[in-house]
Amino acid sequence: MRSGSVADAVRATYTLACPGPDEASGLARAVAREETLEVPEGVAPPTIEQRFLGRVVSVTPAGDGRYAAIIDYPVEALREGPAQLLNVLYGNISLLGGVRLIDVALPADRPVVAGLSGPRHGIGGIRAAAQAREGRALVCVAIKPMGLTADELARLAERLVRSGVDLVKDDHGLTDQGPAPFALRLGRVSEAVARANAHAGTSGVYVPNITAGPAETLARAREAVRAGCRGVLVAPSLAGVGVLGELARMEPAPFVMAHPTHAPCAPEGREGIAPEVLLGTLWRAAGADAVIFPNAGGRFDWPWACCREIHRRLRRPTEGIHPAFPVPGGGIDAGRVAFWAARYGPDTIFLVGGSLLAHTDLDAAARAVVAAVRLAHTGTA
Amino acid sequence: MRSGSVADAVRATYTLACPGPDEASGLARAVAREETLEVPEGVAPPTIEQRFLGRVVSVTPAGDGRYAAIIDYPVEALREGPAQLLNVLYGNISLLGGVRLIDVALPADRPVVAGLSGPRHGIGGIRAAAQAREGRALVCVAIKPMGLTADELARLAERLVRSGVDLVKDDHGLTDQGPAPFALRLGRVSEAVARANAHAGTSGVYVPNITAGPAETLARAREAVRAGCRGVLVAPSLAGVGVLGELARMEPAPFVMAHPTHAPCAPEGREGIAPEVLLGTLWRAAGADAVIFPNAGGRFDWPWACCREIHRRLRRPTEGIHPAFPVPGGGIDAGRVAFWAARYGPDTIFLVGGSLLAHTDLDAAARAVVAAVRLAHTGTA
Repeated sequence: MRSGSVADAVRATYTLACPGPDEASGLARAVAREETLEVPEGVAPPTIEQRFLGRVVSVTPAGDGRYAAIIDYPVEALREGPAQLLNVLYGNISLLGGVRLIDVALPADRPVVAGLSGPRHGIGGIRAAAQAREGRALVCVAIKPMGLTADELARLAERLVRSGVDLVKDDHGLTDQGPAPFALRLGRVSEAVARANAHAGTSGVYVPNITAGPAETLARAREAVRAGCRGVLVAPSLAGVGVLGELARMEPAPFVMAHPTHAPCAPEGREGIAPEVLLGTLWRAAGADAVIFPNAGGRFDWPWACCREIHRRLRRPTEGIHPAFPVPGGGIDAGRVAFWAARYGPDTIFLVGGSLLAHTDLDAAARAVVAAVRLAHTGTA
Repeated sequence: MRSGSVADAVRATYTLACPGPDEASGLARAVAREETLEVPEGVAPPTIEQRFLGRVVSVTPAGDGRYAAIIDYPVEALREGPAQLLNVLYGNISLLGGVRLIDVALPADRPVVAGLSGPRHGIGGIRAAAQAREGRALVCVAIKPMGLTADELARLAERLVRSGVDLVKDDHGLTDQGPAPFALRLGRVSEAVARANAHAGTSGVYVPNITAGPAETLARAREAVRAGCRGVLVAPSLAGVGVLGELARMEPAPFVMAHPTHAPCAPEGREGIAPEVLLGTLWRAAGADAVIFPNAGGRFDWPWACCREIHRRLRRPTEGIHPAFPVPGGGIDAGRVAFWAARYGPDTIFLVGGSLLAHTDLDAAARAVVAAVRLAHTGTA
C-alpha cells in the first residue's frame, strides 16, 4: 500500500479558507458529513455513521489564511462510478465559498476498488489506432472554426492528414451548427481522412466531437464508430463525467479524448478542483484515454508545475488501469513545439490549433510541426 | 424587446479581475473569441467572424479590482441545446482565473430562440401531480441517510406521506449503494408511498434520484416512470446539463427536480457562475421543472438577495416557457418553516431534511411542518 491511500477509503485533501484552526476543524467535520450522510449528528444509527460517514484525518495550517484538511471517504459510499465519486468528493460543497479539492488518493492506488475501470485503450491503444510506434510523440490538430461548412472542414482535415498529422479532432465548439451539422460533418471528414490515408500512406485518425445531451452524446458515439472513427472527443464537465465510463464499456469502444471546457479548474482558485486532480487522476480513472489540458505559456498560462503533474498522473503506473495520453494544448505555438516535445517527452500528444491554421502555407507548417516532434524523440523526422 | 437582451444574441455579463481597464478590454475580447471561434484574428473569413464571433458590448469598472464585461454571442453558435449553451457562455474560460459569469439574458427573453424549451410541466404540472391547489406552498422531505436499507427508506417515506408531506425525494447521495440499490429502493418506496396515499387519502409523490452516467440516468428515469413515479431528481452538473432537455422530451415525461450538487456556484467566488444565473435562468430554460437551492440562513448561508433572485427568475413570466418551482433547502429548520413560507410566498416547495429527521417524533414533526406551511398562505392548516 502506498502512503496517502488506504485500502477501503478514498482520501481527499481540501484547502479551507478559515479565520482560525477551530473554524477549520469545524468546517472539516461539516464537509465530511455534508458529502456523505447529510444528516445532523445523532440521526443516523451508529453502524451507519461508522460505515458511511467521511472521517477527518487531520487539519493543518496551509498558509495564506487556509487550512489543509484530509478526509477519508468510505468506498461503499461512492463506488457506483464517476458521477457518485464526484458527488462525494466535491458535491454540495461546491456551493460553499473557500473550499477547494486539492488532492485525491484512490484506495491503495487501485481505482477499480472505487468502481472506476480506467481507460479502455490508453496510450497503447491510441498508438495502435494511429500506427504511432512507441518512442515518438503524436501531433493532433483541431479543425475549426465553427461556421466553416462540412466540406471546408473535410478539406482542412485531408490536408492535415496528408501532412502527417496523427489525429485530427473537431474543435470542441463544433457540435451541430447549421454550416456543419454533426452527421454531415462526420461523413465528410471521415471520408476525407480515409482518402488522405489511402493516397499518402498515412494513418491519420479523425476524432469527432460528440458532446451533447446524454442520449444524443451516446448516439453520436455509435454513429462515429459506424463511420469508422477510432476515437471521439467529449467534454465530461458538460456531458456528465459518467460518460467516460459508459463510452469505455461500449462495444466496440472508440478511444475517448476528454476536453476540459467548463471544468471547475481555474489554476489558483479558492474553490473548485485542482486541475491535476480532476484532469490527471479522476478523468483517467473514470475512463478517459487521453486528456487535453491548457499548456503552460499558452493562452491560459497554467503553471508548468501543474501541467507536469497532470502529465505525470495520467501516465504513472496504477494498479489495474491503463495509462492515459496527456494532450497539452490551448495555444501551443507551431514554432515552439520542439521545445515542448523535449520538455514533455514522447508519451504525449501535442495539440496544435489556431497558430497552425494562421500560417499562410498550412501544408508546409503542418509538415514542419510533424517533423519537429518526430525529430525531438527519434532523431529522424 | 426587453432591455438587456437582443433578438438574435445571448447576452452574457462577466466580472474580470484585472489590474486596469486596458487589460480588462483585452481580456473581454479574448473571452469573446475563446468561447466562439477560438482561432486568432484573421484566420476565419470575415463572413464567419461576423456570424459567429462573440461581440464585446462594453467593459466598465465594477469595483474591487474587477471589471464588468458584456458580450453578445450569436444564437447560431449555441442554439443546439443546454450543453452547447454552457460551452459558449462558460466553456474554456472556466480554466482561467478571475473570470466569472454573473448574468445572462436569453434572446429577447425567449429561451426557445436559443434552443431551450423550458420545463415540460412547470409549477402547474407539479401542482397537478401532487394535487396541490394554487395558493399554497408544498413540502418536500428528503429520505436519508445512505446506509439505510430500501425497506427502512420506504418506511420513512410512508410515514412522511401519511403526515401530509407532498413530495418525498431521495437524498442526492442515494444512488445504487448496497443497502438500498436503485431498483429495489424504487420498488419499495413507490409501493410504500402508494400504500400511504391509499390509506391516508393523500397524494404524496416519490421523487427518486436517477443521477448516474448518461445511459444509466435515462434508464433510471424510464424505470421510475414505469414504477409510477411522477417526478425524478437529477443533478445536472454531474449527469450533464443536457439531461434536463432530454428528460423534458421523454414520453411520458416525469417532472424534473434539479439538484445543485457540484454546480460551480460558490456565492461570492471570483470564478464560476452566479447562482441565480445557472440555477435560476439557465436550468429552468434547459428544462428543470423545479430547482433546489441552498436557503439563506441554512448550512450554506447564501445571501438572501441571491435566494430571492433565484426564486424570482424561476417564476418570472418568460415568453414560450413555463415557470419552474423554486425549492429552497439545505438546512431549512422545521421550526422556522413558517417564517420562510411567509417570506417566499406560495409558489415555493420547501425542502426540509435533516432537521425534521432529527425529531424524536417524526410523524408529529412532519405534521407540524405541513400545517405551518399551509397556514402561512391559506389561513387553514
